[in-house]
Amino acid sequence: MKKDNISDAVIRRLPRYYRHLDDLHSKGVVRISSSSLGERMDITASQIRQDLSCFGEFGQQGYGYNIMELRSEIGHILGVDKGHRLILIGVGHLGHALAQNFNFSHMGFHVDTAFDISCALIGSSINGITVHSLDELDDYVYAVRPEVAVLTVPKKAAQGMADRLISLGVRGIWNFTNVELSVEDADVFVENVQFADSLLTLSYRISQK
Amino acid sequence: MKKDNISDAVIRRLPRYYRHLDDLHSKGVVRISSSSLGERMDITASQIRQDLSCFGEFGQQGYGYNIMELRSEIGHILGVDKGHRLILIGVGHLGHALAQNFNFSHMGFHVDTAFDISCALIGSSINGITVHSLDELDDYVYAVRPEVAVLTVPKKAAQGMADRLISLGVRGIWNFTNVELSVEDADVFVENVQFADSLLTLSYRISQK
Repeated sequence: MKKDNISDAVIRRLPRYYRHLDDLHSKGVVRISSSSLGERMDITASQIRQDLSCFGEFGQQGYGYNIMELRSEIGHILGVDKGHRLILIGVGHLGHALAQNFNFSHMGFHVDTAFDISCALIGSSINGITVHSLDELDDYVYAVRPEVAVLTVPKKAAQGMADRLISLGVRGIWNFTNVELSVEDADVFVENVQFADSLLTLSYRISQK
Repeated sequence: MKKDNISDAVIRRLPRYYRHLDDLHSKGVVRISSSSLGERMDITASQIRQDLSCFGEFGQQGYGYNIMELRSEIGHILGVDKGHRLILIGVGHLGHALAQNFNFSHMGFHVDTAFDISCALIGSSINGITVHSLDELDDYVYAVRPEVAVLTVPKKAAQGMADRLISLGVRGIWNFTNVELSVEDADVFVENVQFADSLLTLSYRISQK
């Protein structure tokens, strides 16, 4: 697998490939041509071939892609078969919604533990995820070694909590706080969820007509 | 302003430009070169110049961009000065989190009304947004004409609610339901919020090291 210098744009298309292939697979579709996949995803067939060529040889000239195989290969590239462990930090409305509705296991993440400071929440369970006191965070992370933390704490607590998680060894932060986190460690990755970008794209589209 | 055949990739970068310029403006920065802005946004200076050239002439050779001006121009292109009206459909945990924390007005959206079926919620108010019964939806939309609806209803209710909103004249749906909505009307835009893509990007990054 060739994986050097892959652009951010290509990396950000990988989850979309995975999602579309996953959907096609669940609908029982077995093969798809790059042009049909491109039409579905609103990109060109040549873009697809170029993107996938960063990672190896996929598909067969004239036969298209075997959906189950390509889904599994891209899943592997994305790490969904790595069994990463994940914790939720903050169980306010957003944290609760994620715990309740987001299909972490389908993305390859194991999650059974969340942390909050609210006595009303500690000890409760949401969709099989138990809420613990933040006082227990350090011991838990040392013992279980989760790679990823979902951060849905209030803005003022965001940077401090990120620093604490990183010092404990967490390497990925899924950041819903709208705070631009400052992270020095090059081995730590922050993925910011920017709701606003999505709403502004919609604003653009309805403004043009 | 030239606005024909602008690619989806360019459109999706516009909110990012706006966000970065907004942030720089709020920090009191007055001017920025395309190379400094590119460094901040992790894209090349020539990409920025090329993107902006789709919409007109911005910046001055050797002087860079006036941040307040460019922010205002991009805001105008995105429609943040149009005063779009927005309603929330569904006030579960996710709808509640958006009502409570998302700065709709900063994106140029007026929102003061949400709808739900839960008697426990109807009549309550979250951050100045009043929750009404879904029975009142049709009358409200005919009277107030909101352009955009935020959809956070359960999956099984998603398509039916989208159809109802579109038949009432809503033109933009900000879709948090994870259901791929089928929309026939070319004047209606659906913007899907794909949490999964963001988590899988993070999964990729931590899996590569």
